[in-house]
Amino acid sequence: MGSYMETLGSRAKTASREAGKLSTNEKNKGLLSVAEELLLEMEAILQENEKDVSEAEARGMKASLVDRLRLTEIRVQDMAEGLRQIAALDDPTGEVLSMKNRPNGLRIGKRRVPLGVVGIIYESRPNVTADAFGLCFKTGNAVILRGGSDAIHSNKAIVHAVKEGLRKAKLPQDLILLVEDTSRETVNEMMKLHGFIDVLIPRGGAGLIASVVQNSTVPVIETGTGNCHIYVDEGADLNMAVDIIENAKTQRMGVCNACESLVIHEHAAAQVIPMIVSRLKLHSVEIRGDETACALSGEIVPASEEDWGTEYLDAVISIKVVESLDAAIKHINTYNTGHSESIITESYANALRFQDEIDAAAVYVNASTRFTDGFEFGFGAEIGISTQKLHARGPMGLEALTTTKYIIFGSGQIRR
Amino acid sequence: MGSYMETLGSRAKTASREAGKLSTNEKNKGLLSVAEELLLEMEAILQENEKDVSEAEARGMKASLVDRLRLTEIRVQDMAEGLRQIAALDDPTGEVLSMKNRPNGLRIGKRRVPLGVVGIIYESRPNVTADAFGLCFKTGNAVILRGGSDAIHSNKAIVHAVKEGLRKAKLPQDLILLVEDTSRETVNEMMKLHGFIDVLIPRGGAGLIASVVQNSTVPVIETGTGNCHIYVDEGADLNMAVDIIENAKTQRMGVCNACESLVIHEHAAAQVIPMIVSRLKLHSVEIRGDETACALSGEIVPASEEDWGTEYLDAVISIKVVESLDAAIKHINTYNTGHSESIITESYANALRFQDEIDAAAVYVNASTRFTDGFEFGFGAEIGISTQKLHARGPMGLEALTTTKYIIFGSGQIRR
Repeated sequence: MGSYMETLGSRAKTASREAGKLSTNEKNKGLLSVAEELLLEMEAILQENEKDVSEAEARGMKASLVDRLRLTEIRVQDMAEGLRQIAALDDPTGEVLSMKNRPNGLRIGKRRVPLGVVGIIYESRPNVTADAFGLCFKTGNAVILRGGSDAIHSNKAIVHAVKEGLRKAKLPQDLILLVEDTSRETVNEMMKLHGFIDVLIPRGGAGLIASVVQNSTVPVIETGTGNCHIYVDEGADLNMAVDIIENAKTQRMGVCNACESLVIHEHAAAQVIPMIVSRLKLHSVEIRGDETACALSGEIVPASEEDWGTEYLDAVISIKVVESLDAAIKHINTYNTGHSESIITESYANALRFQDEIDAAAVYVNASTRFTDGFEFGFGAEIGISTQKLHARGPMGLEALTTTKYIIFGSGQIRR
Repeated sequence: MGSYMETLGSRAKTASREAGKLSTNEKNKGLLSVAEELLLEMEAILQENEKDVSEAEARGMKASLVDRLRLTEIRVQDMAEGLRQIAALDDPTGEVLSMKNRPNGLRIGKRRVPLGVVGIIYESRPNVTADAFGLCFKTGNAVILRGGSDAIHSNKAIVHAVKEGLRKAKLPQDLILLVEDTSRETVNEMMKLHGFIDVLIPRGGAGLIASVVQNSTVPVIETGTGNCHIYVDEGADLNMAVDIIENAKTQRMGVCNACESLVIHEHAAAQVIPMIVSRLKLHSVEIRGDETACALSGEIVPASEEDWGTEYLDAVISIKVVESLDAAIKHINTYNTGHSESIITESYANALRFQDEIDAAAVYVNASTRFTDGFEFGFGAEIGISTQKLHARGPMGLEALTTTKYIIFGSGQIRR
């Protein structure tokens, strides 16, 4: 007999074999059934969520975190609507990406197939529970969910509704498995379930992600932190630059694709830095700059070395003045987290060099970094934004939850 | 100051930035220069290799392992020829795999780019040293090589020639870095070089691969073990079946795509098992079977439960008789290692079901499993065969050594 987690892993593996055989119609029917069931079980979900919320408040959880934890009628309706939208998306599995004949007559095709079992480790956002299930199920995977202990009552209630929706659609209920024991031991064991879990996706803060990367023997897709830069080139359209900077910094402050640092060519600095300062002051953004930047505005406070590498997720931004595009590229490649970087330029050559040489998931010319997002990229869904280089990089839609297998059609070929 | 391994990691990272900027012409020139230098330094390479070989023999290394370690004039010529062949391949980097316009006018493209720094951990095959360098360099990566201590003199001599070839082509010599300290501490540190090494590829036996998977915090591409099956369906062409089985088992015994286990439909068993036995006896293959198989031939010895999961890499094969295609699929999905599986059948429906439901990198109909190989698949190169599902699955050619980045062309877009 295996441990608690091994048993979950084995059940998920078995369910994943069934999931891989379902037609797109069957999967879509399941998603709609689950959406309906979430609404039917609304009252129970909100009651259980209230337990989590009052326990969190009693423990003195920060108001912004309590807000992420809290479900309302509208938020549950949004979960259901999210599943309906996933049902409406194209199913990426089954597609043959290429098929070629070899000289010996073998036909070798590469087909997109489900990953198998996906593990998600996340914090106290109960909406992730329904959303992650929907994306994994649509792509023919089983999912093992390990949410934060703060949200355990909410997650149990949501998973109950998902299982009931699956049952009504005559689908295996083990397609979703919740780790109900939220102890540190079970999460550590989950990260070692090599052979049962095909990929682990951590969703949450930098600490959670680092811990999964450090401890997991299961392959991990790192999502995450964004220390995103905007570089204002010599000769850039400065009004465009200021509009883009304002958007990238202030349209939503606490997200990974928000701009955290500006790099300014020294020939643009004297003109554009005062423009930036006055625009960002409208949003009460604190500005920390190097010596040159500070000399150009009394509103800028000195930046420390630590600032260059900091993802503020807050109303703070840093400014570095550089003497060349080379220096800008070097600075960004030194301090960025491989997420999203943008150049504001009118120069053809500089635009190409920036896109070639910056090492990041998304490299923009003359646009806000805030577009790095599965929906903005037109994927219709997003399981996270990968900041690593294996398997998936940048916003991950349904395709990131698939792998491929080679299918080979022969007529008796043997190797000589 | 960083440790020995951090210093290597940092040097490789710097070199990888340069590598990413090289044109295909520059890289090909570098490969040809290194090929030439290997021939120029032939004598030194063979002398240093002789030290490894005599030390290994003095320690009593098995003859087959000494043979893998030994270099000859022809083997060094083969290394040089391998690099010339890599130079002749298409460069996959730079290709834009898709480019679409979004409704707001953003043009979003997905471009294939180098991974950055590739780490290879391998055993005592000095030919891997030149080969891995060639594949990584062609794709614009820097490589850190950690070979076995048994081959350290050979590896140093080969790396000397590679660096000299790079120098003559005016290319950074840090594009190849050899871990000269082959202690356990340095390899453990190498597996933790998250942030410096973008991917680790272990090449070697099951023990080496398991150790890297267990201990690495750097993303790993697992290559490896193949417990490959051939299923003979009811109504199969039995002469074709026996020819394919003979080829898959005996054409080369010690390789990962060799067949290790047969699964036979009970309606075919009485006729085909004696045919298989007499054919495999020509190659002195020991046959271990379940009760039904043993009853059909006095030459078959009883198999234990352990046999079903064993990759023999030797003149041994197991036979399991099943009552249905379902039972065959279940048996294979239970015991296989996700490498290569084949069905011999005349049934359209069974061929499709086998390809759909078997969970492996390569699923064949009516062909030998021995074709799972980068060269046989037409990739012109192979860095290994991935038996895991993330990033790359099956034979890995040059593309497996690349990632993608999104390149976004805007004209002032901000997010609403």
